Amino acid sequence: MRTLHNIDLKNNENGFTLSWENRLILSHSVDAPCLWAGAGDADIEMFRGNFSIKDRLNEKIALTQATVSERPSGWVIRFTRGDAVGATLEVSTDDHQRLVLKLNNDAVAHNRLWLRLAAQPEDHIYGCGEQFSYFDLRGKPFPLWTSEQGVGRNKQSHVTWLADCKENAGGDYYWTFFPQPTFVSTQKYYCHVDNSGYMNFDFSAPHYHELAFWENHATLRFECAPTYIELLEKLTGLLGRQPELPDWIYDGVTLGIQGGTEVCQQKLDVMRRGGVKVNGIWAQDWSGIRMTSFGKRVMWNWKWNRDLYPQLDTRIAQWKREGVQFLAYINPYVASDRDLCEEAAARGYLTKDAAGKEYHVEFGEFYAGVVDLTNPEAYAWYKEVIKKQLIELGCGGWMADFGEYLPTDTHLHNGVSAEIMHNAWPALWAKCNYEALEETGKLGEVLFFMRAGYTGSQKYSTMMWAGDQNVDWSLDDGLASVIPAALSLAMSGHGLHHSDIGGYTTLFEMKRSKELLLRWCDFSAFTPMMRTHEGNRPGDNWQFDGDAETIAHFARMTTIFTTLKPYIKQAVAQNARTGLPVMRPLFLHYEDQPRAYTLKYQYLFGRDLLVAPVYEEGRQDWTLWLPDDRWVNVWTGETHGGGDITVDAPLGKPPVFYREGSEWQSLFATLRHL
Amino acid sequence: MRTLHNIDLKNNENGFTLSWENRLILSHSVDAPCLWAGAGDADIEMFRGNFSIKDRLNEKIALTQATVSERPSGWVIRFTRGDAVGATLEVSTDDHQRLVLKLNNDAVAHNRLWLRLAAQPEDHIYGCGEQFSYFDLRGKPFPLWTSEQGVGRNKQSHVTWLADCKENAGGDYYWTFFPQPTFVSTQKYYCHVDNSGYMNFDFSAPHYHELAFWENHATLRFECAPTYIELLEKLTGLLGRQPELPDWIYDGVTLGIQGGTEVCQQKLDVMRRGGVKVNGIWAQDWSGIRMTSFGKRVMWNWKWNRDLYPQLDTRIAQWKREGVQFLAYINPYVASDRDLCEEAAARGYLTKDAAGKEYHVEFGEFYAGVVDLTNPEAYAWYKEVIKKQLIELGCGGWMADFGEYLPTDTHLHNGVSAEIMHNAWPALWAKCNYEALEETGKLGEVLFFMRAGYTGSQKYSTMMWAGDQNVDWSLDDGLASVIPAALSLAMSGHGLHHSDIGGYTTLFEMKRSKELLLRWCDFSAFTPMMRTHEGNRPGDNWQFDGDAETIAHFARMTTIFTTLKPYIKQAVAQNARTGLPVMRPLFLHYEDQPRAYTLKYQYLFGRDLLVAPVYEEGRQDWTLWLPDDRWVNVWTGETHGGGDITVDAPLGKPPVFYREGSEWQSLFATLRHL
Repeated sequence: MRTLHNIDLKNNENGFTLSWENRLILSHSVDAPCLWAGAGDADIEMFRGNFSIKDRLNEKIALTQATVSERPSGWVIRFTRGDAVGATLEVSTDDHQRLVLKLNNDAVAHNRLWLRLAAQPEDHIYGCGEQFSYFDLRGKPFPLWTSEQGVGRNKQSHVTWLADCKENAGGDYYWTFFPQPTFVSTQKYYCHVDNSGYMNFDFSAPHYHELAFWENHATLRFECAPTYIELLEKLTGLLGRQPELPDWIYDGVTLGIQGGTEVCQQKLDVMRRGGVKVNGIWAQDWSGIRMTSFGKRVMWNWKWNRDLYPQLDTRIAQWKREGVQFLAYINPYVASDRDLCEEAAARGYLTKDAAGKEYHVEFGEFYAGVVDLTNPEAYAWYKEVIKKQLIELGCGGWMADFGEYLPTDTHLHNGVSAEIMHNAWPALWAKCNYEALEETGKLGEVLFFMRAGYTGSQKYSTMMWAGDQNVDWSLDDGLASVIPAALSLAMSGHGLHHSDIGGYTTLFEMKRSKELLLRWCDFSAFTPMMRTHEGNRPGDNWQFDGDAETIAHFARMTTIFTTLKPYIKQAVAQNARTGLPVMRPLFLHYEDQPRAYTLKYQYLFGRDLLVAPVYEEGRQDWTLWLPDDRWVNVWTGETHGGGDITVDAPLGKPPVFYREGSEWQSLFATLRHL
Repeated sequence: MRTLHNIDLKNNENGFTLSWENRLILSHSVDAPCLWAGAGDADIEMFRGNFSIKDRLNEKIALTQATVSERPSGWVIRFTRGDAVGATLEVSTDDHQRLVLKLNNDAVAHNRLWLRLAAQPEDHIYGCGEQFSYFDLRGKPFPLWTSEQGVGRNKQSHVTWLADCKENAGGDYYWTFFPQPTFVSTQKYYCHVDNSGYMNFDFSAPHYHELAFWENHATLRFECAPTYIELLEKLTGLLGRQPELPDWIYDGVTLGIQGGTEVCQQKLDVMRRGGVKVNGIWAQDWSGIRMTSFGKRVMWNWKWNRDLYPQLDTRIAQWKREGVQFLAYINPYVASDRDLCEEAAARGYLTKDAAGKEYHVEFGEFYAGVVDLTNPEAYAWYKEVIKKQLIELGCGGWMADFGEYLPTDTHLHNGVSAEIMHNAWPALWAKCNYEALEETGKLGEVLFFMRAGYTGSQKYSTMMWAGDQNVDWSLDDGLASVIPAALSLAMSGHGLHHSDIGGYTTLFEMKRSKELLLRWCDFSAFTPMMRTHEGNRPGDNWQFDGDAETIAHFARMTTIFTTLKPYIKQAVAQNARTGLPVMRPLFLHYEDQPRAYTLKYQYLFGRDLLVAPVYEEGRQDWTLWLPDDRWVNVWTGETHGGGDITVDAPLGKPPVFYREGSEWQSLFATLRHL
């Protein structure tokens, strides 16, 4: 058979092989087929963003026979099982010479597809959105469904067990706010799937990756490149890139404060007096509060609450003059008992239930309507809410929370099943925020940050944060988990990531210790944004103003962060330009070093800083691996070659190394004297 | 189409229906087929009897087309999906006019079958062997695989979580030592499957029961009857019935004692002096002990240990003269480091690994070989071990433990896959014990009791016990769980059941309280056998000789039990004759009363006693339901009609009622004065 655009399709006795750019992509025979068709009834239950998902599988049929036909644009492969069942695979390339595989089941009732991509046992796999427990995804299945990330995320964790017992909230290793059907193979290709239905990418077999689609069609796109850096440039060429961050981001820490104008002012003053560089106040309760048993909750009615925040408008202007932004909060829901919801309902802008009435989601002792972002009028209306309530007020940014809760049984204006729209929702929510900035000319000046994401968030979500870590040291849901989250997202095309300093989830026996807050602060100084969170039960957590030592610690680490401003800014600019992420897996720059592919708790911050955060309690030193290069310890000036080393790691001096000969060497050298 | 033996097979436009004795059994159409064929690779991992079982499903194909052909013996139905996949269903009757459905996949590689039997939403389902968590099985799937029963058996239980973290030992609602592919529907039929591979009977759909078979063929048998009592007679006609119990069983409690001859003697003396009726000493450590972190374990080398049990032979004779039997212990494994194992290995009597060497199973800090009961010589040899070591010694009985651990990767003499033999193993082990009794003329004089079982255990296991309950009050694994266990086993054809008084499993935070021991003793006086167990950590548990009050309690309850001897004996005789179980669900005698079908913690003990054990801590009274009849409170003489009542329920007076007008009325009336 012929070769087209480097696609090599060979028939053989029992089937065919499809290679592309010398990579075996599909291998099919009667005994080892590559495609299955089938049908199932999804059984999806949600309780407060925690999903129980089962497939009542009606059938799964191996399509053992394959007949290849040539077309001008490529090939069409007819897959059948006898005369009763079939599917079609179209092989072609798109305008950018990407390999495109389009699958279609013959029968509409066949709403399941399983495709096996050829793999080699030694391949590593990265991506699938934001993965907190694994960076190399080989060896496990990864169901792709946006949801709460889970509490503890490990069935061996006591906290997970408690959360599971309470409301099925414990989660598991694959639970994430930001899944994405995109992965990078160490065969130096990416594979991205256009769909948004439930998928399960199973990387556990040695010779294939099995991709399951809960739809009757799927479109896969592939590109390859000689280096991972070029591959990410291609991937972000497909998915989009984040704009640069506002300049003020690099000027200090954004303090998460609640409680009203005066509390903000007092805490700001205390911190500034203590020498802390503060670039913003993030007050999620700007719209008021509601008390629940989970803790104090924000009033989901997106208007400045003048009772709790008197004179906020003038104070915002004053703070801004002092270099301090005011950041607020919004999400895509409107509290059922308040006026925005009433307005939305009256205009028909909320999603509906089966009977055509407004659908109300239970959010923990209160209900909210879902603004129907598939309705262009509702979308425009909500964009106006953002412009009027947040931008006009003078906010420097906001948390654009949630996005992962779209119930699968709600009815949408665009007529698409909510089961299919569920994953796409966070990106739609991002787009609404993004356009509000774009249309007001505020992109690059105002920043919103999100936890939920999907394909499209690369272009529309200006900054990600890692969601709701536990205020603990657990690998799967504590400080450590933020690192693979940033790196897997980096490999999925989103290069801007930060986290709540100190974590958020404070339930059961958890309380945030001073040590955890300080270690998290250390780590965050080497991410593109520093921002604190009180946690959901502030009284149980150590806070940034807990004592003089803590304040001094924040003063030190914000000084380090702001000192790095030109370096970080350059890395962010490069991310905007080429999709090279700010926090990078080591193998992006050290492709030839096998260990670089296996590390999930170290990263490069830009090109020239290597960071290995301390994520265990009570440590005085830390062991890490340096790739083959010359590395200078930022705190001691000591120089190292590659290999495993153990270094002192006191609080305030996280293991960080810079590359000898870096153009930023003199800047890095100043850190030692701070 | 014709009717044959009351089978009515009707073709219709899209398929067919099969009715039998006016019950709709199969309903098939293109859109709602009744049969699927497929293939899977079983992924079965075992650790100490705890199984993790997954199916790597390769395919599952709805066989939508059905073509019915008549045969002299019945019908043959060809099921196909197009021209590529097919299976055959033969419909006939056997010599006893049972409806027989024989399924066969066309392709050997198709090792999975799913059959949907027609059901009505209001049907109740009972049986599937010994089920501890549910009695009515409607609404859930029940995987059928003999294994440890689990610790706690409920993912919401802290103990289950701890056991799961430690060694996947927590279990779930369907874990059981004694599964069986047999159920009784309230359409008054039973369905029994001849196979022994892994099955999953799913009763969760309103209009069908889906039976999944991990084999390429299956044979189902059905009988129906006008009453449940007649139905059980028919079921036990198929499966076999237990012989009567030895007469001494009714003469008191069998004391579980360990520690040697003198300890047995001392405890026996203490109890007898306290007025306790003792019919036996059960000393599981008769063959010696081994210390492990789980606690003291029995030495699995089935020979009298003269060091620990000096003069046991003469003492056995003496005790027997005093009306006290000595009961020992054996299981189907031989400890790798002892001589019986050496002998078995030398003779080639152990199961093998893939390389043809002896397979050794890890049992918790020691290993044991598996006697290959499929090898007629090994089977005969082990029967001789029983005869020589246990029967010749003069034992009145023994616990024939285990049977549920056959690893699926061991190789057997008969050439059948261990995956298929796994479930069958407990019944083979029962048969070996049974024949040792039969061939020595000891049936009805000597008693062995088992926890593991399968089809065949009805005939060969002379008595079941409920396995390893937790020493706690939990519904899924404590005292309460014994009741549905006895009742579900009763509906599966085994009518003799008892439990460890006080429970067994003593792990983590569990310790047996005095109250629990006494309540369990109360309950056991209304079962066909009273037997205590120290538990695996005797020092953590309250014991029968814990204080004078406890001894007096056992004196009282054994007096009640022995007073009931003629009544219980008659019920046991009836079970042997007709398969009417000794502990009976209420609906066996009250078919017309809907509530009788829903109760899992009450039972009839024989025809005329209604028992509602107290299974909660700290209770002084108890609420129960009485079917429409005249009932006399055994302790007060008060008379009640049907309905819900609350009665006093102090220790030693469990809620028990007798039927007014019973032929045993004068015997029952004496209990009040004990």
